Amino acid sequence: MQTVFHLIADEPEQQQTALTIAENLTKDDSVEIDDIAIVAQADGIEPLTAGGDGSDTVESLLETGISVKACGNTLDLKDLAESDLVEGVETVPSGGGELTRLQSEGYAYIRP
Amino acid sequence: MQTVFHLIADEPEQQQTALTIAENLTKDDSVEIDDIAIVAQADGIEPLTAGGDGSDTVESLLETGISVKACGNTLDLKDLAESDLVEGVETVPSGGGELTRLQSEGYAYIRP
Amino acid sequence: MQTVFHLIADEPEQQQTALTIAENLTKDDSVEIDDIAIVAQADGIEPLTAGGDGSDTVESLLETGISVKACGNTLDLKDLAESDLVEGVETVPSGGGELTRLQSEGYAYIRP
Repeated sequence: MQTVFHLIADEPEQQQTALTIAENLTKDDSVEIDDIAIVAQADGIEPLTAGGDGSDTVESLLETGISVKACGNTLDLKDLAESDLVEGVETVPSGGGELTRLQSEGYAYIRP
Repeated sequence: MQTVFHLIADEPEQQQTALTIAENLTKDDSVEIDDIAIVAQADGIEPLTAGGDGSDTVESLLETGISVKACGNTLDLKDLAESDLVEGVETVPSGGGELTRLQSEGYAYIRP
Repeated sequence: MQTVFHLIADEPEQQQTALTIAENLTKDDSVEIDDIAIVAQADGIEPLTAGGDGSDTVESLLETGISVKACGNTLDLKDLAESDLVEGVETVPSGGGELTRLQSEGYAYIRP
């Protein structure tokens, strides 16, 4: 099974909850998880920025093999470059496009 | 691919973000999108009301071919008639029912 | 068709809206619903606790045959025992795991 988490809220606490739920999923032996992705856009991009609030959690999620993707439209809007992001974060053309593509491939969607 | 956006939050800024993400999806050439729908319910109904906050964005989304659907239960609860809605908005019996039906047809679900 | 509702927000009003949408889905004759589940985690657990805000609605949803599931990680984090929950509520290892499993079985996902 595969799961994509949608990170979009602007509250640090809510973002942390989202990242914790992703982390907990990797530890749940009752489901066989083949892949976990996080797609972040709008104000949910904060933890993906280097030194941003919650970026340490993003770093440890990347280390567990979770892929983390930043919405390109959001980067443009917030005048952020890829070099402003945590190392290992990928950029996708649009968050909505990536969420659609992953779900069409069978990923479950979770919006914390 | 097909995508349905769920509009339910009561914050104008969050509603605007949702509508922008829908708009951006129409411009993402990396995914082949066949249809986009928006299902609004509870306080998310505001941008669908004629003259409501964000209704100009709903009007332009309708012009791009996105279908916009209002939850009938919400209309009842808020004492709104179909004539109170932006022209072109459809009414569905329940938001939950429509979201279920569309996903069962293969639509990806995005809740901004 | 089958639907799972994700209860995670910490605002009583938003939780009530979520429960109302689940209830309305049972009354929508335009879609054939075979099963409805609610998965609650993080602060969304409140209505599932005995005597908690919204617990009377959870009780009546259980009576209509909707299954209500509490995230085990959340119970641990909040130091709650199964005996603290409304009678009839099930416990699952993780909310994320259960949401993934249900969607992989074809459940539509709604996050009010």
